[in-house]
Amino acid sequence: MQFTSERRLDDSVIERAFNLGEIPGFLWTPASASASSPVPLILLGHPPLGLGRMYPRLVARALYSAADGFATATLELPGSGDRPRWPAVEQARAELRRAMEAGQPVSDEIVDALVLPLVDKAAPEWQAALDAVLSLPEIGGPVGYSGGVISIGIRLAVIEPRIAAAGLFAGSFVPRAVFEEARRVTVPLHVLLQWDDEGNDRQAALDLFDAFGSKEKSLHANMGGHTGVPQFAGEVAAQFFTRHLK
Amino acid sequence: MQFTSERRLDDSVIERAFNLGEIPGFLWTPASASASSPVPLILLGHPPLGLGRMYPRLVARALYSAADGFATATLELPGSGDRPRWPAVEQARAELRRAMEAGQPVSDEIVDALVLPLVDKAAPEWQAALDAVLSLPEIGGPVGYSGGVISIGIRLAVIEPRIAAAGLFAGSFVPRAVFEEARRVTVPLHVLLQWDDEGNDRQAALDLFDAFGSKEKSLHANMGGHTGVPQFAGEVAAQFFTRHLK
Repeated sequence: MQFTSERRLDDSVIERAFNLGEIPGFLWTPASASASSPVPLILLGHPPLGLGRMYPRLVARALYSAADGFATATLELPGSGDRPRWPAVEQARAELRRAMEAGQPVSDEIVDALVLPLVDKAAPEWQAALDAVLSLPEIGGPVGYSGGVISIGIRLAVIEPRIAAAGLFAGSFVPRAVFEEARRVTVPLHVLLQWDDEGNDRQAALDLFDAFGSKEKSLHANMGGHTGVPQFAGEVAAQFFTRHLK
Repeated sequence: MQFTSERRLDDSVIERAFNLGEIPGFLWTPASASASSPVPLILLGHPPLGLGRMYPRLVARALYSAADGFATATLELPGSGDRPRWPAVEQARAELRRAMEAGQPVSDEIVDALVLPLVDKAAPEWQAALDAVLSLPEIGGPVGYSGGVISIGIRLAVIEPRIAAAGLFAGSFVPRAVFEEARRVTVPLHVLLQWDDEGNDRQAALDLFDAFGSKEKSLHANMGGHTGVPQFAGEVAAQFFTRHLK
């Protein structure tokens, strides 16, 4: 992990941009974190729209989490932002768009072609980022995963034992294979669902919540459309991480 | 409203038992409440099992709410506790039990016969209690309604303009007429659903949540069976009332 820049935000948070091999990412740390008092980490997931476009929302989440005493880190997704285009996934995305614009149901094949390669490639990258970030003396365990592509969150929760709690956002298409993986998730889960999310199948989200194997899982449904998660829902999610990571 | 007893709990809460005409009830007030600094009120709903049996859970909610600066009040339900038996409702309850024990679906007729008379009789009683409690100088508005028979909460939220927010527990049978009333609820709602509630039809609860007319409504689903609402869910509900009543 090569740090490429460092600056202070709000006087109390250190933002460091890094490259993990060819993959850009960010690490935000409360300025008070040190080797003698390391802070727990939350991985900030995001949709595959590029870190540049997602930056304002990510930094807001990072500042909020830092105030609660968490470091946060995020990584560019494969095929997004400054990373090389990924023609197969872009083709699947075009097919998805065509189907949705035509008002047709989105087939399992399109969802598989769109999401599975992303999950297969991203999950080990985020694990590598975890290795790198946790090697820093001011960052300790346990680790939370928050938001973004829910299928990546599910995969990580299943394969990565350092993840102790996950806050997931029911807002994207989940391949059948990942739905089956959800049954093997056992960490505490906090699932946000935007009840009238125009881009999300509510019943599929409820079925997925039901499938999770976790003994502690909560579903929080709110109004406000896909991007309209109310502020109080963010506060409740923060309390979830504080409960499980501190 | 005749007060029949008064005592201090935990040194910081005043518990007063009262009779409203023939109907017994309780009022809990933070000791700090006064005419010059009145506190908002939460009505504590409960299932029709009698105030005596419900007392331990009610007083726990009252103490919790008092710590957040709320007065709380509750009233015996018609046909419960020390109030006169109500043969028609008891017969409907027996039919409900028979149907459930036989594994048969509970008919709309049984639900109507069981719940509608209770709602029709209880709602104006709770409004009368509200009149009496709000006439005390140390109690101010606005008013919240919390828990208990969800159909009573729905009716009160529709007909009682002093209720500014409601926390409802998706855990009982809702008559079709009350389901239609739910569309006319407009106050902010916080709905708790126990996901694996053995005594509750999950799909009916989701349909009801969908029907509520409120622009701000949140559904919080947790694990743990009918009586296993996790403690953190109570904390989140408390924050809902603090947000809307303070």
